[in-house]
Formats: sequence, structure tokens, C-alpha cells
Amino acid sequence: MTFQRAVALLSAAFLAFAPPSVALAQQAAKQKVVFQVSDADPAKWNLALNNARNVQAELGKDKVLIEIVAYGPGLGMLKRESKVEGRLAEAMQNNVGLIACENTMQNTKTTKEDMYGGIAYVPAGVTHLMKRQREGWAYIRP
Amino acid sequence: MTFQRAVALLSAAFLAFAPPSVALAQQAAKQKVVFQVSDADPAKWNLALNNARNVQAELGKDKVLIEIVAYGPGLGMLKRESKVEGRLAEAMQNNVGLIACENTMQNTKTTKEDMYGGIAYVPAGVTHLMKRQREGWAYIRP
Amino acid sequence: MTFQRAVALLSAAFLAFAPPSVALAQQAAKQKVVFQVSDADPAKWNLALNNARNVQAELGKDKVLIEIVAYGPGLGMLKRESKVEGRLAEAMQNNVGLIACENTMQNTKTTKEDMYGGIAYVPAGVTHLMKRQREGWAYIRP
Repeated sequence: MTFQRAVALLSAAFLAFAPPSVALAQQAAKQKVVFQVSDADPAKWNLALNNARNVQAELGKDKVLIEIVAYGPGLGMLKRESKVEGRLAEAMQNNVGLIACENTMQNTKTTKEDMYGGIAYVPAGVTHLMKRQREGWAYIRP
Repeated sequence: MTFQRAVALLSAAFLAFAPPSVALAQQAAKQKVVFQVSDADPAKWNLALNNARNVQAELGKDKVLIEIVAYGPGLGMLKRESKVEGRLAEAMQNNVGLIACENTMQNTKTTKEDMYGGIAYVPAGVTHLMKRQREGWAYIRP
Repeated sequence: MTFQRAVALLSAAFLAFAPPSVALAQQAAKQKVVFQVSDADPAKWNLALNNARNVQAELGKDKVLIEIVAYGPGLGMLKRESKVEGRLAEAMQNNVGLIACENTMQNTKTTKEDMYGGIAYVPAGVTHLMKRQREGWAYIRP
């Protein structure tokens, strides 16, 4: 092994481990939080929406990514006739992601026609929450 | 210091920091999630079991490690006379770890005789949940 | 580039990435957990206090940092007339951080005069929980 080759090899090996740190730095620049809603309790739905609004107020709307994932008994939060229906449009305008669980929908024979217009969908709410945690999002269960 | 020795030292130092990254890569290959059950509410117990089943259905049983930790008022989920007793055997057959908190058992004078056969035990449910989070498992509180 | 300079550069670059790993090692030495209290339910307040006590008992009081963050409907836990008021002094003596959300206080016209003496305050409970998760604390929602 020549000297130059040793340096090149070590540098290459070293750089291979650098990306995570770079990713961490970017993540620090933009905070991320996912809220879980899995209770059939409109008070919890309001609390999740209040939490999202407060986080945006403190950190700045463009400094934080926010999602609210409704699944299981919490699916009702994002239905067309939801008790918090009046607040959903405002949340979407403020770039709060509203996400419903298709697994729960299938199990409860709920269709997209029954859901509030414009929301997003994931195949399973729980695996989405797992994914977000793996990606470094904070997890809050109001 | 000779050239070869310098390269060897740097390589050794570098490798000392490599294992976490290697572990992270393996972790990405196999997802991990721990569910907390701390409510005396059979609906929550069923939700946790449904969540586990849905995660396995979406990701593949051999692609994900799942544990359900019952503690505090949630301990009843894993008792012999549990309201979800009929589903516990199926969960164990599907390699869902069912784990009871010995702290809670002592505080409530519950013995292993009172618990569902074949489940696992940890000294304290909460410290186990902390350990799993440190190890990179996702945390879901249904 | 001389041999000595190459070694020096690589060492410097390597050390630049070392701090996170060093920080992780220290973090492993001292565990950290934050408990969220957001229910108006004294049973949950007692559970959070029990959890904190059990974690200290198992890990050792000087080996773990513990905070309890009360916000939303959980704020009542840390009020002067709290149903668990008798246990708050003990928790503080044991170095369990008791933290109230000022956002919730403003929304409910609650002043520090109404709160239990000696507790700590954060502008928003949720952003504090996000911060702790970013810093590697375990999150438990009893």
C-alpha cells in the first residue's frame, strides 16, 4: 500500500460515515413533530390541533414540519362530519399535515367520501408513526 | 511513529467508531416497535394487538420486532383472566413479545401464577421502554 | 502533502466527528426520561410520580435525569391545590423536575400564584417535549 493510497482509503472510509452528521445538522435546522390521535375523544382532537398551533407560534410556521395522524378510534377526527371539522381547513392552510389510516378505514367500512376533503392517507397509521420516529421526528401523543 | 503504524492507529481509532453505524444499518433492515399498555381498558388492549397485527401485515412478520409492554393499570391485559386472553396465544405464535412489569406485580400482589402462561417479564416496564427507545425502537402508546 | 501533515489532517477530521459519539457515551452513562402529563386525571398523575420513583429505584437517583411535563388538561397536577400536592415536595427533593406549560397557563388564566411553589416553567410544554426527544431523552406518556 502506498502512502497516497492509504490516505485516500482512510479519507473515503471516513467520508462514508459523514452523511448522518450532515443529515443531523439539517434536521436541527427544521424541527419535525408527529402527533398521534387514537382516541374517540373530541377533546383530544382539539388538544392535538391546539398543540400544532402552539408549536407553530413558538417556532415559526416555516421552521417546523407538523403532522397529525389519526387512526383506530381516532379516525373520526378527520371525517367529514368531525366535531372539529371547523378547524381542519385552518390546520391545512397552516401546512399541518392531516393524515388518515387506510387500515382503520377498511376495518370500519369508511370510504374517502366519508373523510374530510383534502387530507392525506397512509396505508397504516402505526407504520407511518414508526417511519417518522426512524426519520428523527419527535412523537407526541396528546 | 512509522507510516504503517500511523495508518494502523488511525484505522483502529476509526473502527472504534464504526459499530454504531453498522448497528444502525442493521436496524434499518429490521424495524422495531414497542407498544405501551398502561390503561385498564380492554379497548386499548385490543387496539395494541390490532396495531401489532397490522404492522406485521404491512412490513412482513420476519421484518419487524414487536413488543407489547403492560404496566401499571395496564397489567390486567396479560393476566390469566384477561378480557383479551383469547388473542394472547395468537400474538405469541406470531412472535409478538408480551412483557409484564414485575414492579406493578409486586405493588398489586400479583404473582406469575396470576399471569398468562408463556409471557416475558421485566423488572420495570418503564425502564424497559426507556431501554428500547435508547436502542432505536419506535415507541407507540395506543 | 507530507506524511505528518496527512496524519494530522486525518486526525483532526476524525476528531471533528468524535464529539457526538463521546456525547452518546456520556448519555449512556446517565439516562434521561421525560414524562408527559396531559390528562385531567389524578390517577395518571400518581402513575407518572410512581413511574419516576420506580425508575430512580431501579437505576439509582444519580444515574438518571427525570422530568415530568404537565400541559393542557394535565396542568392541574402541578397546581397549589393539586390532588397529588402531597407528593410534589417529595418528587422535587428527589430531583424529579416538575415543569408546567406557560401556554396552557395563559389560555386558562392561571398564574404562578396558582401553581405549586418551586416548580419550573417552559413557554410551551410540547416544544419542550420535542426538544428533549431531539436531545435523546426517552419519552413516556403514562
